[in-house]
Amino acid sequence: MKLAIVSPNAKRLGTLLRGRVGEDVLLAYWDGVGEPEAQVLEAEVVLGAPDLAAAVMDQLSALRWLQSTWAGVTPLVGQPRRDYLLTGVKGIFGRSMAEYVLAWVLAEKRSVLRHSSATSWDGRPDKGLAGLHLGIAGIGSIGGEVAQRCGGFFASVRGLNGDGRTVPGVEHCFGAARRLDFARGLDVLVLLLPDTEATNQFADKALLEQLAPGAIVINAGRANALDLDAALEALSGGRLSSLVLDVLAEEPLPAEDPLWRTTGVHITSHTAAPTNDEAIVALFLNGLTRYRRGEEPAGRIDFDRGY
Amino acid sequence: MKLAIVSPNAKRLGTLLRGRVGEDVLLAYWDGVGEPEAQVLEAEVVLGAPDLAAAVMDQLSALRWLQSTWAGVTPLVGQPRRDYLLTGVKGIFGRSMAEYVLAWVLAEKRSVLRHSSATSWDGRPDKGLAGLHLGIAGIGSIGGEVAQRCGGFFASVRGLNGDGRTVPGVEHCFGAARRLDFARGLDVLVLLLPDTEATNQFADKALLEQLAPGAIVINAGRANALDLDAALEALSGGRLSSLVLDVLAEEPLPAEDPLWRTTGVHITSHTAAPTNDEAIVALFLNGLTRYRRGEEPAGRIDFDRGY
Repeated sequence: MKLAIVSPNAKRLGTLLRGRVGEDVLLAYWDGVGEPEAQVLEAEVVLGAPDLAAAVMDQLSALRWLQSTWAGVTPLVGQPRRDYLLTGVKGIFGRSMAEYVLAWVLAEKRSVLRHSSATSWDGRPDKGLAGLHLGIAGIGSIGGEVAQRCGGFFASVRGLNGDGRTVPGVEHCFGAARRLDFARGLDVLVLLLPDTEATNQFADKALLEQLAPGAIVINAGRANALDLDAALEALSGGRLSSLVLDVLAEEPLPAEDPLWRTTGVHITSHTAAPTNDEAIVALFLNGLTRYRRGEEPAGRIDFDRGY
Repeated sequence: MKLAIVSPNAKRLGTLLRGRVGEDVLLAYWDGVGEPEAQVLEAEVVLGAPDLAAAVMDQLSALRWLQSTWAGVTPLVGQPRRDYLLTGVKGIFGRSMAEYVLAWVLAEKRSVLRHSSATSWDGRPDKGLAGLHLGIAGIGSIGGEVAQRCGGFFASVRGLNGDGRTVPGVEHCFGAARRLDFARGLDVLVLLLPDTEATNQFADKALLEQLAPGAIVINAGRANALDLDAALEALSGGRLSSLVLDVLAEEPLPAEDPLWRTTGVHITSHTAAPTNDEAIVALFLNGLTRYRRGEEPAGRIDFDRGY
């Protein structure tokens, strides 16, 4: 069986994989530099970064299964080709995302930045998180883990997904059609939405106006879900207390962009849920075992929905 | 029955209490300004801040039960008088302390301060908390709640208390005699020790040397438990990555103290677990119901142990 690793990080992933796949598996690599070897293009199974895989999709003549190394698979669902199984990364990023959400909510609500820069005693008490209502838009496997790990610190946890299906650890789930009801009175809005047409400008002026005064908005999904102009207006007008952006329409955001110096905006440079190579390889090996048994690896992406 | 509220915050506590105690209860107040009225000194039950209560302890002629409004009761256990029931505040501060510990560990390990001050893209990934070993010295009701609420983010949670008794949510509990074993390899050391002779300089040079390289030390208990000079030396030598101090030998710490400007030191001005008046009053009312039934209110302080 021919297996290709297509990733800027291909060598490292290969080191982790080698010796853990059968001896009948031929491994080939492409890290995006130069042209891929013929053996890469003949692969039946690809472990790959969506952008690189998309660049050679037309040439992958034997492809049957592609395991993405990213949570987001937009470059691949945007391709016309759909005659293969595309699986995403689920169950890896949730823990890291939960840390990220708590880190920034606590930074604000426990005055981490204020205390860090203090030069004299400042004993003003914080209210903490106990009275706050958390809402997670785009609640699937990652958001569900955020809810389960962080929910106990908040007064309530609300979720929103396409159809309003229930998610463990989430008291109220809303469907996309009820997005304004979902947002009403939230103190913390976390956007974890995939990049699809349906999520464009999800958090627009009308939605942001539903949030509680002084709310925190955290976008750690995809940039398209947030109307950045509306959010900045709400921030400068004092309706939001802070805006935490892990994702931006242009990445890396140029150093000359005024966002870097906008009070209340925190830019975390796409580090909210970093890829963990070892976890990705373990997930891929589970899938490979299933694939070779004739079963379907977990995490199938629906090309129509885009996630 | 005569009940006195002895606290800088007496009026506010009285407002919360009024109408929730029986009509046969006579309420008196002293906020520490001027001399207390006779009715305060004749109280059978006192809800009080330990420092103010200690100042009039000799004059409290009818005292049978004193409910502290603080977690720490050092000013009272330092008094010769022990012919009354002293109860502490338990089960209130744990949630706030858990937020505090996570806030500062995440601030460091998820680079909150670095990202907040960034002026250009910085996508270096963080390792997060998953590989870190957390140790809580002085694990009782507060530390136990810290362990239960935060433990799932860490690789392991260790505790230390006087006798090494087990605590729910804590994998390994050490007695005070094994403090160096407790400390060995910890990435995060949280000090929540009471102020007693036995805890003086608990975290000394020998203990700090047991910690993992780059450890974080958080003191949110009492200042006496940490050898500050040894901690600052470990910090400047790079053995510690940061030192988070909620409590100090002198509070408020004077603005001219060089600690305010020491790199890696974060001073949070005794805000880790702020007193929550409503929670204190609810706790006191539970105790009062028990007291009037002839039962013992929860939270008895052992004068010998000091907590």
